[in-house]
Amino acid sequence: MHVETEATQHLHRAARTARHASHVLARSSETERNEALRAMAAALRARQSEILDANAADLAASTATAAFRDRLTLTGPRIEAMATGLEDVAGLPDPLARTLAEWTRPNGLDIQRIATPIGVIGMIYESRPNVGADAAALCVKSGNAVILRGGSESVNSARAINAALTDGLRQAGLPEAAVQIAPTADRAYVAAMLGAAGLIDLIIPRGGKSLVERVQREARVPVLAHAEGLCHTYVHAAADPHMARAIVANAKMRRTGICGATETLLIDAAIAPSLLPELARDLRELGCDFRADAAARAIVPEMKEASAADFDTEWLDAVLSVAVVDGVDAALDHIARHGSEHTDAIVTEDAAAAERFLRGVDSAVALWNASTQFCDGGEFGFGAEIGIATGRIHARGPVGLEQLTTYRYIVRGTGQVRP
Amino acid sequence: MHVETEATQHLHRAARTARHASHVLARSSETERNEALRAMAAALRARQSEILDANAADLAASTATAAFRDRLTLTGPRIEAMATGLEDVAGLPDPLARTLAEWTRPNGLDIQRIATPIGVIGMIYESRPNVGADAAALCVKSGNAVILRGGSESVNSARAINAALTDGLRQAGLPEAAVQIAPTADRAYVAAMLGAAGLIDLIIPRGGKSLVERVQREARVPVLAHAEGLCHTYVHAAADPHMARAIVANAKMRRTGICGATETLLIDAAIAPSLLPELARDLRELGCDFRADAAARAIVPEMKEASAADFDTEWLDAVLSVAVVDGVDAALDHIARHGSEHTDAIVTEDAAAAERFLRGVDSAVALWNASTQFCDGGEFGFGAEIGIATGRIHARGPVGLEQLTTYRYIVRGTGQVRP
Repeated sequence: MHVETEATQHLHRAARTARHASHVLARSSETERNEALRAMAAALRARQSEILDANAADLAASTATAAFRDRLTLTGPRIEAMATGLEDVAGLPDPLARTLAEWTRPNGLDIQRIATPIGVIGMIYESRPNVGADAAALCVKSGNAVILRGGSESVNSARAINAALTDGLRQAGLPEAAVQIAPTADRAYVAAMLGAAGLIDLIIPRGGKSLVERVQREARVPVLAHAEGLCHTYVHAAADPHMARAIVANAKMRRTGICGATETLLIDAAIAPSLLPELARDLRELGCDFRADAAARAIVPEMKEASAADFDTEWLDAVLSVAVVDGVDAALDHIARHGSEHTDAIVTEDAAAAERFLRGVDSAVALWNASTQFCDGGEFGFGAEIGIATGRIHARGPVGLEQLTTYRYIVRGTGQVRP
Repeated sequence: MHVETEATQHLHRAARTARHASHVLARSSETERNEALRAMAAALRARQSEILDANAADLAASTATAAFRDRLTLTGPRIEAMATGLEDVAGLPDPLARTLAEWTRPNGLDIQRIATPIGVIGMIYESRPNVGADAAALCVKSGNAVILRGGSESVNSARAINAALTDGLRQAGLPEAAVQIAPTADRAYVAAMLGAAGLIDLIIPRGGKSLVERVQREARVPVLAHAEGLCHTYVHAAADPHMARAIVANAKMRRTGICGATETLLIDAAIAPSLLPELARDLRELGCDFRADAAARAIVPEMKEASAADFDTEWLDAVLSVAVVDGVDAALDHIARHGSEHTDAIVTEDAAAAERFLRGVDSAVALWNASTQFCDGGEFGFGAEIGIATGRIHARGPVGLEQLTTYRYIVRGTGQVRP
């Protein structure tokens, strides 16, 4: 209890200085924000050896698996990539320089809806230390202050990176409090962030299912969650077989651990007998395993039998659920029952079937004749992303600079009063 | 505990049928939704006597104040106004027929960001029974299902109105479950709605401070809150005195009980000696009382002394806080400390000062030379509004049809796979 109180006190102080910094950022020029990002990049390079030392201390203290250690590890090239990332963000268009709408009322009032920063963002993430620098870059560019709470295993790395980032802010004349990190790795600090209604405007969790679920359960602050990506690729009766093979292999196996990876193949009953054996052969050669329904196993008996839960499972691995469906509506029904409204694709040469699918599916991203792995801020042309939103309000899909802004109205009159 | 469980079970059933209805609405045509709205209006007229009887029962059971009883009372003209309101919404542009952005990537992928319904909305409101019909109209038009929980005093009126609304939906071939009301006036039902993460996509509370605060404290579901409107009008040194008098009188006294009413007058030290006596005289004639700082009282000694808390008080009454400030930055500082980021105005003939104010204030609505009472969906040209949002994400200011939508992406390819 004492620890929680201390964490809460610290967080409240941090949030107040962040609020002040956010007001300064909101009024700063594009040039000032971009210069700060470039200075932050330069400071990362200048402090490379300190950051590597801090990272070595984190690694020495870690007892994690090899895969986890790899995510935790920083190297010269990885620090250079962080620095380049900051410079890339500096080069993107200013998300605050947007008039979203403008109209004049019959009484002469001119109304503008303009982009404006959200304010103070709380970012809660897990192992990779570079996430902090990436998030800081997007927040500073979009005029938001950010409080970063990384994983407990990377606390020394996060501190060293943050020292570089605040160096850059100071050199550019912007407030250091615009980018802050949690002083401890206590879980109490996460609780304090989640309870900071009115102090933090938006929490962005990035991490595993248990983190995201905890955030959604406990938060008193709006959350832009990145939850499950249970993505489907539906191969329609009129699919081009060659294209279907290329798309399915890519959607499943290019990277199996990302949220846009296809987890379930829906294949139309009309094309399954001829195409499913080829798809299965391609994927098996890439190391993929299968969980298939009875109709699919009647065609490719070597595939393992799917349990009822398999179609609700985000594998994030070289495993594919497979079901045979009869037409677009059956595919839509399957997706409505089992999907996560993240990313779903149809492969077909039949434009009417494609449009029916694209209109009927309610996913953040619906694709026609393309891999589900395109659900990505970079691939969308956003330049950078802070995550993929799976909620239904404010933002859906890849979250880039625009999604880190909100809006307000400016109304210009000539003395109008309301009748 | 038993009551809460029962409420929760009912709400979960209601939310599941609402979800299904929302999918039907999302795929319905503009014509279908508009026909439903017109049929709902006709049914309200056809069931007028039933609705009046139900309302009489509510009034007979009520022990409330006269002002509250007036808000609760339905009459023939008030029912006709509800019906006309539904028809007006039918005549508005379809908020779902909007492509918000479209671009083509270098790899040939065509990306569209399109408007889409939010899904299932929970509306929690207090006395006025017409709020339910207004909210239902906006939700159906924007393709959302809605669960309405009105005040316990209007439960019979709400049931009778809902019977008419579902009549209209049925006649138009849309699912009745698109508009549902809480079966009881138990507070447990509100708790069930606030806890319905994943079942309700957005809660909109409309009512007094205690309702809104409860919702913000307890909700596990995203909230589009309507909290305080502590609005300022700043009369700058270069204000046109005649215009300032007209705007201040209107901003404060046109209607004192709405959230866009000015609560604090900030008057510039340079113009206060000449103008404040006139402003005070105008307002006093309209029945306004004052809480003024020392500098203002040095000019108009008859004004009462302001306590420290007065500048943080949303009067919603014929009372005005008055402070003398020295320049635009001092006005911005006062608003940043005491305001609620709702609506704030400057009166000046100096365009540079105006722009400095409009850029520097972070309110949902910032006005130049116009009354703060223009913060209203109707006055903005939205046709109708469901409330005024005071949070910072998804929507700020008047919430009309567009703000009841979200977006998703449609990506059309020709076989692209991700490298």
